[in-house]
Amino acid sequence: MNAQIITIGDEILIGQIVDTNSAWIAKELNKIGICVSKTISIGDDASEIQQTITEALHSSNIVIITGGLGPTNDDITKNVLCRIFNSELVLNNCVLDNIKFLLKQRNIPLNENNRSQALVPDKAKVLNNSIGTAPGLMFEMNEKILFSLPGVPYEMKHIFSEHVLLLLQNKYHLLSNFHKTILTAGLPESVLSEKIQEWENSIPKTIKLAYLPSTGFIRLRLSKNNADKSDIETINFLVEKLKTIIPENIIATEDIRLEEVLGNLLKQNNKTISTAESCTGGKIASLITGIPGSSAYFKGSIIAYSNEIKVKELSVNPETLQIYGAVSEQTVIEMAENIRKKFNTDYSVAVSGIAGPDGGSEQKPVGTIWIAVSNTEKTITKNLLFPFDRITNIERTANTALLLLINYIRHGR
Amino acid sequence: MNAQIITIGDEILIGQIVDTNSAWIAKELNKIGICVSKTISIGDDASEIQQTITEALHSSNIVIITGGLGPTNDDITKNVLCRIFNSELVLNNCVLDNIKFLLKQRNIPLNENNRSQALVPDKAKVLNNSIGTAPGLMFEMNEKILFSLPGVPYEMKHIFSEHVLLLLQNKYHLLSNFHKTILTAGLPESVLSEKIQEWENSIPKTIKLAYLPSTGFIRLRLSKNNADKSDIETINFLVEKLKTIIPENIIATEDIRLEEVLGNLLKQNNKTISTAESCTGGKIASLITGIPGSSAYFKGSIIAYSNEIKVKELSVNPETLQIYGAVSEQTVIEMAENIRKKFNTDYSVAVSGIAGPDGGSEQKPVGTIWIAVSNTEKTITKNLLFPFDRITNIERTANTALLLLINYIRHGR
Repeated sequence: MNAQIITIGDEILIGQIVDTNSAWIAKELNKIGICVSKTISIGDDASEIQQTITEALHSSNIVIITGGLGPTNDDITKNVLCRIFNSELVLNNCVLDNIKFLLKQRNIPLNENNRSQALVPDKAKVLNNSIGTAPGLMFEMNEKILFSLPGVPYEMKHIFSEHVLLLLQNKYHLLSNFHKTILTAGLPESVLSEKIQEWENSIPKTIKLAYLPSTGFIRLRLSKNNADKSDIETINFLVEKLKTIIPENIIATEDIRLEEVLGNLLKQNNKTISTAESCTGGKIASLITGIPGSSAYFKGSIIAYSNEIKVKELSVNPETLQIYGAVSEQTVIEMAENIRKKFNTDYSVAVSGIAGPDGGSEQKPVGTIWIAVSNTEKTITKNLLFPFDRITNIERTANTALLLLINYIRHGR
Repeated sequence: MNAQIITIGDEILIGQIVDTNSAWIAKELNKIGICVSKTISIGDDASEIQQTITEALHSSNIVIITGGLGPTNDDITKNVLCRIFNSELVLNNCVLDNIKFLLKQRNIPLNENNRSQALVPDKAKVLNNSIGTAPGLMFEMNEKILFSLPGVPYEMKHIFSEHVLLLLQNKYHLLSNFHKTILTAGLPESVLSEKIQEWENSIPKTIKLAYLPSTGFIRLRLSKNNADKSDIETINFLVEKLKTIIPENIIATEDIRLEEVLGNLLKQNNKTISTAESCTGGKIASLITGIPGSSAYFKGSIIAYSNEIKVKELSVNPETLQIYGAVSEQTVIEMAENIRKKFNTDYSVAVSGIAGPDGGSEQKPVGTIWIAVSNTEKTITKNLLFPFDRITNIERTANTALLLLINYIRHGR
């Protein structure tokens, strides 16, 4: 039982957009025990689409395609599907009614382009799209099943969750795939690998271990397809054993984001937090507030991009800026302590640095970062030098700040 | 002349990570006139890797693979490459020296895992990786060329820019592909399509038009492969004509981000900006400061997540909060005007809303958003109701705020 995902659109092949649909669908399929063997992106080319779908239907039971269903002229997918499934386009009144309803809601007049979206292959089962004008389609042939979904991510996710998931769950009855992810930090891949060599050798052959390095940390993932209860017990046992080997380096034993780990810690301890950001420009606050319910522990931030604001809003001593500079240990300490007091929070984090590409000097090259983490007892700092581009420097800095906070709350250092 | 990109890793197929490498490589290849016909993601399975690479070498001149070169046990790509290119692994001293140098810099001892990274197929040309321990590899066979790069994005990008680009440019001499992207806002796809129908029909058959809907705007892309001077002139003429048809809806005639359009406008007009954010939690500031040189026009922000901070730091009248609530026109007006005055900027934007999934009421359901944009002359507001999930609601709100700012600076409304 395996699936292939095909995403269609020239915009993917010229790199104009990143295909996030495949990862999302793959994750959802995995949850219900369906393995994805391959994902493919191709352009808006009828013969390429036809060939790729035909091959996918040959080698996989389930094929999911996204893209190529919009109201404009660059859509060719429906015609290809008609050829493959020996079907022809007919007007579907339910789809037309849905389109009319949606357009009326948005005060948009119905036009020919919208009307053509109501033409669907007669062999397809229509999957209603209550938030967009392109319906989803399902085809079945020779024990194979194909879903065609719009490419706009939130419409695709909506139809997938509303229809596809249930249809697949009802059709197949499978044991689930089991994945356990351990988030580690503080050890480079080669050192981590050496430290846990013996543990790694103890893993049964049927369970797969993967190292997933990311910006500032490494995920270890243990996987077992068609896992039964004893497999799950074995994996959980392995995780417990690992905890005894690298206790200080395990940040979480779930596949969650650092900002979620931080949020859980703050909630558990009934603590609040604020941030004072210069070079990260709100990135840390934005990550923290991406988590539902973060208003329980996050009060706010001051983004002090200019020195004027650092002095005026964060009460950084002008002499500190003059003597040590905005990117210095002294400045981030003042920023962290003052935001904490000003916003009346238990913890705070402050960041100042040179994200690049310009603004560096010999003494403080691009990538120089200072971070301070503070509570009422003390303030600790960290100095970093990142070699990356602006966006990556900002991301790594934000992740490092979250990690520092997590360790500080957990271990007080 | 076409290329295929293959990304390798179970983490992609279970949806744990989004493959951003393919889009990045595709964009770079396109710039030098190489079309990508397909991108494929497969798991860490030797036979699947071998089959996919073999097929890609059969149908494309250029194959680029990423992933499967790290220092740990889940790496199998090098052995597959040895089989395909009839090669065997030998110790490469240059690679070993580079690994030793990098580890010394980071104070990490050399171990067996690192040493094994210095084993490379003898038929491969080594592409030095000055920022990571896994080298890039290049193979040539029967007029086909294959590059194998590490999967960590910044290492991949580094080796690609340092080596792959030049090697490809030297080997092939091609006319460039030409893309022109027009960023539009304010018209839904179907209406836009109808408005520009006649213009669309005037486009020569050799030039492709694509509609790329995104969160809150639509990109129109005109493309011509192997474009000569007259093709470029035709496309530029089409863009000029389009400007006369939908003048109010064209935000930019380049493929740039909204925050870049905003930044350019502010720089051109020598104006500064600040933000006061509640539900976006720093997202707008983070987008603005993602642009190099943004310190010239961005002074800072106050993220007022709690009402306490809205009152204390943004001087929002407690009565306003009590009578109208934090998510109201009155509140965002006060937030926008007060941050502008406090931070002494020419423009400001303020946002308050309910991002979800909780916190909604019958009167103000989840997705209710208020935005205010202000300068010394006046403050305008916009009310929105988004039906999406938390992260998408935040993103759409941030994009809408940027759009409002752009239009306000341009048209004063």
